[in-house]
Amino acid sequence: MAEQNSPADGVFDAVCAMADRAAHAQQSLAGANTDVKNALLLDIADALVAGSEVIERANAEDMDEARESGMSQGLLDRLRFDASRIAATADGVRNVATLPDPVGEMVRGRNLPNGMRLNQIRVPIGVIGMIYEARPNVTVDVASLCLKSGNAVLLRGGHAARRTNEATLAVIGDVLSAHGFDPALVASVDRFGRDGATAMMQARGHIDLLVPRGGAGLIRAVVENSKVPVIETGAGNVHIYVDESGDLGKALPIIINAKTQRVGVCNAAEKLLVHASVAEEFLPVVAHALTEHGVKLHADEAALSIIVNAGIDGLDIEPATKEDWATEYLDYEMGIKVVNSLDEAIDHINAYSTGHTEAIISEDYSHIERFTSRIDSAVVMVNASTRFTDGGMFGLGAELGISTQKMHARGPMGLEELTTTKWIGYGTGQVRA
Amino acid sequence: MAEQNSPADGVFDAVCAMADRAAHAQQSLAGANTDVKNALLLDIADALVAGSEVIERANAEDMDEARESGMSQGLLDRLRFDASRIAATADGVRNVATLPDPVGEMVRGRNLPNGMRLNQIRVPIGVIGMIYEARPNVTVDVASLCLKSGNAVLLRGGHAARRTNEATLAVIGDVLSAHGFDPALVASVDRFGRDGATAMMQARGHIDLLVPRGGAGLIRAVVENSKVPVIETGAGNVHIYVDESGDLGKALPIIINAKTQRVGVCNAAEKLLVHASVAEEFLPVVAHALTEHGVKLHADEAALSIIVNAGIDGLDIEPATKEDWATEYLDYEMGIKVVNSLDEAIDHINAYSTGHTEAIISEDYSHIERFTSRIDSAVVMVNASTRFTDGGMFGLGAELGISTQKMHARGPMGLEELTTTKWIGYGTGQVRA
Repeated sequence: MAEQNSPADGVFDAVCAMADRAAHAQQSLAGANTDVKNALLLDIADALVAGSEVIERANAEDMDEARESGMSQGLLDRLRFDASRIAATADGVRNVATLPDPVGEMVRGRNLPNGMRLNQIRVPIGVIGMIYEARPNVTVDVASLCLKSGNAVLLRGGHAARRTNEATLAVIGDVLSAHGFDPALVASVDRFGRDGATAMMQARGHIDLLVPRGGAGLIRAVVENSKVPVIETGAGNVHIYVDESGDLGKALPIIINAKTQRVGVCNAAEKLLVHASVAEEFLPVVAHALTEHGVKLHADEAALSIIVNAGIDGLDIEPATKEDWATEYLDYEMGIKVVNSLDEAIDHINAYSTGHTEAIISEDYSHIERFTSRIDSAVVMVNASTRFTDGGMFGLGAELGISTQKMHARGPMGLEELTTTKWIGYGTGQVRA
Repeated sequence: MAEQNSPADGVFDAVCAMADRAAHAQQSLAGANTDVKNALLLDIADALVAGSEVIERANAEDMDEARESGMSQGLLDRLRFDASRIAATADGVRNVATLPDPVGEMVRGRNLPNGMRLNQIRVPIGVIGMIYEARPNVTVDVASLCLKSGNAVLLRGGHAARRTNEATLAVIGDVLSAHGFDPALVASVDRFGRDGATAMMQARGHIDLLVPRGGAGLIRAVVENSKVPVIETGAGNVHIYVDESGDLGKALPIIINAKTQRVGVCNAAEKLLVHASVAEEFLPVVAHALTEHGVKLHADEAALSIIVNAGIDGLDIEPATKEDWATEYLDYEMGIKVVNSLDEAIDHINAYSTGHTEAIISEDYSHIERFTSRIDSAVVMVNASTRFTDGGMFGLGAELGISTQKMHARGPMGLEELTTTKWIGYGTGQVRA
């Protein structure tokens, strides 16, 4: 379990006090014009660039400590927040300023038979809690999305990035103050260590929504222990199914793109299911290409025998275990299985998927309809790479994370997903008969 | 705590197996045409009327037992399910058949720059768990709403209504079977007693959403202990604020309606805040009318002195305690407070409200704008009774409950709130650059 169940004495009260101050500050932000929020974001972007040196110095200390503690190259790369990354992140903030403001949008509106006018409008959620990995750009991304949508946010970043986050939040806090907002709108509980995260999970009534991002263990611990409503994000045991009618010329580049374009991300493919009638033809081709990209294969009996018989140079393959079917590798590895029917593919996917994204490669209308309707995941792709599941790619402008649950938000969470609604009834003295 | 933390051995597995069977059956329902679902609902309505005698007999046994155990008249009345109530409930089912089907509705759809067509459509949630009080009509209402929206449902009804619910579900199950559906689509865990409810809370991955209805203790226990996503419903510490600009001729009937038309419901008013500048004029009038309706008053110091000085016959009043401000009486009682400003009213409401419904009586545009934007509740009424917060009144046709939380659904939960969405991307071989 990544987090304990009870925070140390005093931490819970301190975190609740921070959340309550954030909630109070959020009331001003909730009523702020879009122009005011956009000006704030543009100034934050400028201030981050202007403060690059200070942030970089803090990041260098974090990087040194991480290197000494033996952090892997991949994680070190995610931790790095140098001038060029800060500039790119600042551009992301400027982009959020260009996005439509969801606050105030009318979701439904009508006149009731009794003459009341009834409107349902979008409003900010309130105070959002975010528990995430040691990726300093996420601190800025989350802050900009929350501010634009009128929310306050409490952050618990990865311990390894704490100096970088502190320096970054100091810059953001100064801009908030300069614009007349309480810097408590974007605050970190990092100084409480893990107890800060545990306290956030207990702070029902103080924090409105908790979004955990990171490893499966962390997310599971938050989901199981939080008394605050949670949105699960990011676990992606992503499947691609090649149908008997699939265009193999489309299938190959889609599979290679989905598996190898970036392996450490949640929308990367992890499993390949191939219909038995095309397995003999297609598996040697795809196994060859995956091997060229350095992908290790975990194959079921049928796939294993076809692939091994193909005599591929440098092939790295082993029999798939039941655990493989449930594993999100986040690495150059892929599970491969031969299925005898579309329904076998769908049942396997619904049994093992994390509900993120699945794809079908098919030219058969009925099969596509059946796959897209029966698959129970946030996103279903037809003849396209699973790597497109992304707020930016979907035209949402940016995303806080990708929800793999069904409540509130499903799939990429943009600004709209950071709002709730309020019903307002305008009457002239109506009473109920 | 109304429910224990761990179900007895075997109950958890049994409830998960029921949920999994329901999930399997739900796959057929999810793909069923609206016509098929409506025909099913109309037959259920007819079968309930045809089966009235059997259901009534079961209900008579439940009523006898409840009377012997000393159940109050109010609760006995809610438990009664006689032929005329069964007929009215069946009419409700017929009404659900007339409502638009939310499944398949396109929420957003666009062509992406890369040529992919991206649609976000409404789909059923899956398996819904419902824990509720001993009100047999709720069993039917919930079943019809879940079936129409393509969901399976596991029910844990109040123990006192168990025979009535069993007879009712037998009728519904027969109709499901006759239409080729597995009766597991609408199933009860009542035979496991409280352990059934506890098991539902633990059944993450088997049940998609849990909706508790009933007393504050039950709801709190579910919210704090459930590993399954929960929607809180029904707690209503509802406020009415009479502004200095308020039309007192509108205020009086609205307050009397909101407080006394039905006292045991969540949208009944529980608190009255009156601006100091109209308190001397208005409080004696409203206290007199409330007294005539048999309402006991809990007043703060300022209100108490004005009301007592008015010399009202039969007045029942006592000083309000801090606990009063947080209490949902669900009875002929009301808390009354004098405030010195609009903001004092708003701050008091946001501090003590359960987030259900609040109303302002005002003719001042700026005050109304400030109240409707700053109040953090699901519904805000302007110059109208709080009793209008209701799925039927809102034109949603029917409701599963009224959500007082901000995630997923806020306010009355109709058919649309029983759906989630799925993104479907239709490509022609697109890969990510």
